[in-house]
Amino acid sequence: METKENYLPSLITETPMQGRQLAIMLARKSVAAIQADSDIRKKLRPDYAEDTQQLIASAQVIATEFQTIAAANNYWK
Amino acid sequence: METKENYLPSLITETPMQGRQLAIMLARKSVAAIQADSDIRKKLRPDYAEDTQQLIASAQVIATEFQTIAAANNYWK
Amino acid sequence: METKENYLPSLITETPMQGRQLAIMLARKSVAAIQADSDIRKKLRPDYAEDTQQLIASAQVIATEFQTIAAANNYWK
Amino acid sequence: METKENYLPSLITETPMQGRQLAIMLARKSVAAIQADSDIRKKLRPDYAEDTQQLIASAQVIATEFQTIAAANNYWK
Amino acid sequence: METKENYLPSLITETPMQGRQLAIMLARKSVAAIQADSDIRKKLRPDYAEDTQQLIASAQVIATEFQTIAAANNYWK
Amino acid sequence: METKENYLPSLITETPMQGRQLAIMLARKSVAAIQADSDIRKKLRPDYAEDTQQLIASAQVIATEFQTIAAANNYWK
Repeated sequence: METKENYLPSLITETPMQGRQLAIMLARKSVAAIQADSDIRKKLRPDYAEDTQQLIASAQVIATEFQTIAAANNYWK
Repeated sequence: METKENYLPSLITETPMQGRQLAIMLARKSVAAIQADSDIRKKLRPDYAEDTQQLIASAQVIATEFQTIAAANNYWK
Repeated sequence: METKENYLPSLITETPMQGRQLAIMLARKSVAAIQADSDIRKKLRPDYAEDTQQLIASAQVIATEFQTIAAANNYWK
Repeated sequence: METKENYLPSLITETPMQGRQLAIMLARKSVAAIQADSDIRKKLRPDYAEDTQQLIASAQVIATEFQTIAAANNYWK
Repeated sequence: METKENYLPSLITETPMQGRQLAIMLARKSVAAIQADSDIRKKLRPDYAEDTQQLIASAQVIATEFQTIAAANNYWK
Repeated sequence: METKENYLPSLITETPMQGRQLAIMLARKSVAAIQADSDIRKKLRPDYAEDTQQLIASAQVIATEFQTIAAANNYWK
């Protein structure tokens, strides 16, 4: 069921903002790894896009992914 | 759907308090990355602003983002 | 909407117990950053003060904030 | 509302098991910092003691507190 | 009740993408360690596969497992 | 109410798989520390064993405990 796409060639990004976008992408790819059907995922969007509890939970996933990416990039120092 | 705005030029802040405000901003930007329509986000505010469960969950996101920022700034030592 | 109060001059505390109290304060300040109206926050207290699910979720926020503060203080060693 | 009791003189313990017990104690003290009335806390115990969702959430708090304590003790190596 | 299968000979992977797939596998193995009956697990799939709240919570588990794996691999630098 | 059993003589394990099993054991012991009555815990098993939300939340606890154990063992490198 796993996507064979290599969406993560590297954790290294040039800028913090790119690191942020990578974190958002990884969070989405995790959902896709569990629910591989993109039509179903599109159908499900209304279930969370206006549900603040789920928007906050998604922000938590992004924060955890970003923590990993920021450490990988030595905080772009 | 991602905002092309560069809201994160750097993780480095002068003070812990600025680091705190950056963490709060990042948490908000994550929600905006998922629900990009600012009118919808404004409409949704009452759903969480007086819901203590969601206020606590938001504080958890801020705590995780701040953990990353504090490490990036070597805890402002 | 953010409070301009500087409630975090430093992450460094003399003792672990002070670090603990700082973590509890930071958790509360996060809620205040999202719901800036202190009267509303007071009104909301009964919603969580006797709700064990929310008391546990609050303890999770404190644990994450304390993890950051303890690392900042090199575990007061 | 904060307890003035110093329940955390140090993060350092002799053994991992003591570290484990310290993590459990810290999780409980966080709840007490938010709901300072011990009679209310006793009254609330049935609300979570047989609710597996809340038992699991409590285990998450203990895991996070233990992560901090284990790092503080350099994993008792 | 634990599976005696050794599904984790090592945390080291050649690439970040393999690290990602390992994180997804570990998240699944945790569920299997608690609910060892694969028929029951298959029966339960519809309960989460189209429930965005649970898809997001699963993404959180993957993010935490990946954080460990990425650190183990020194971020594949 | 705490079990006086020393179930954690050390965080060090020979293999990642043993580290994984230790993480699962620690997650269970946390629940036992809060609900010390093993008969009640057995009675409660059906409440979570087929509830995917709670199976996912349990996997989150295991991921956090494993993160600590993996760092303690320097990722078995």
